[in-house]
Amino acid sequence: MQTDKLLLVEKVLILKSLSIFRETPENILADLAPLMEELECERNTLLFHEGEIGDCMYVIQQGEVRIHKGDITLAVLKDREVFGELSLLDAETRSASATCASDCSLFRIDQEPFYELIDSRPEVARGFIKILCQRLRAQNEKSVKG
Amino acid sequence: MQTDKLLLVEKVLILKSLSIFRETPENILADLAPLMEELECERNTLLFHEGEIGDCMYVIQQGEVRIHKGDITLAVLKDREVFGELSLLDAETRSASATCASDCSLFRIDQEPFYELIDSRPEVARGFIKILCQRLRAQNEKSVKG
Repeated sequence: MQTDKLLLVEKVLILKSLSIFRETPENILADLAPLMEELECERNTLLFHEGEIGDCMYVIQQGEVRIHKGDITLAVLKDREVFGELSLLDAETRSASATCASDCSLFRIDQEPFYELIDSRPEVARGFIKILCQRLRAQNEKSVKG
Repeated sequence: MQTDKLLLVEKVLILKSLSIFRETPENILADLAPLMEELECERNTLLFHEGEIGDCMYVIQQGEVRIHKGDITLAVLKDREVFGELSLLDAETRSASATCASDCSLFRIDQEPFYELIDSRPEVARGFIKILCQRLRAQNEKSVKG
């Protein structure tokens, strides 16, 4: 059974609840929300394989996703967590595989419409540049302290 | 005595020689090069102070710049090194101070013309998003290995 389609405003609220978008202005999230494609996946579905070229990111609405290299589990992600976001932005190869560890409701955002959005709305590009800078600053802090 | 003004192509070559722009296409660097303002600074010039809001990045053409928190030196940067680049992109506060440790020839790129460029040339925004992703991937690799 399919879940009902979410309203745009519900998608915006989901994006806003993600740590990577916590500081992102709502008008940018409102541009991004229509690109969120709803997916229902069964347990054990392979979402992507290590080494593949990535062209989308995922948000977990409900369920668990295992990030792994072969049999070695690197992380188990749960509701409202994001994965594959660097491949959305730069289309490099996936550094690990992702498999559904339970039945999952996911959102997928594909690279092509995302880059069309960036090309037509420079403030979205600025928003993402800012998000990436914040993550780099946080990483730098961590490595100084680490 | 002022040095002669550099040609655009020389500025592009300088940008290309920087590790952060090594993979950046020349057409993007050619858009960025006219924003490089040449500066001659004497030894002991304070370029910026920890905690200030940053709005520009610097490239060292010749000389040495000390990055420090008060009296504690974090790094001494030399020819063809870059500093302050995160503040160019996100206008957050400077995490440390920068002082010329010798007479220096520098380039400064200011945020306002940089963001005007990003707004009019989405491929420049894409290029910077890619650069930031590469740096995050490199940082992630380092913290996994570290």
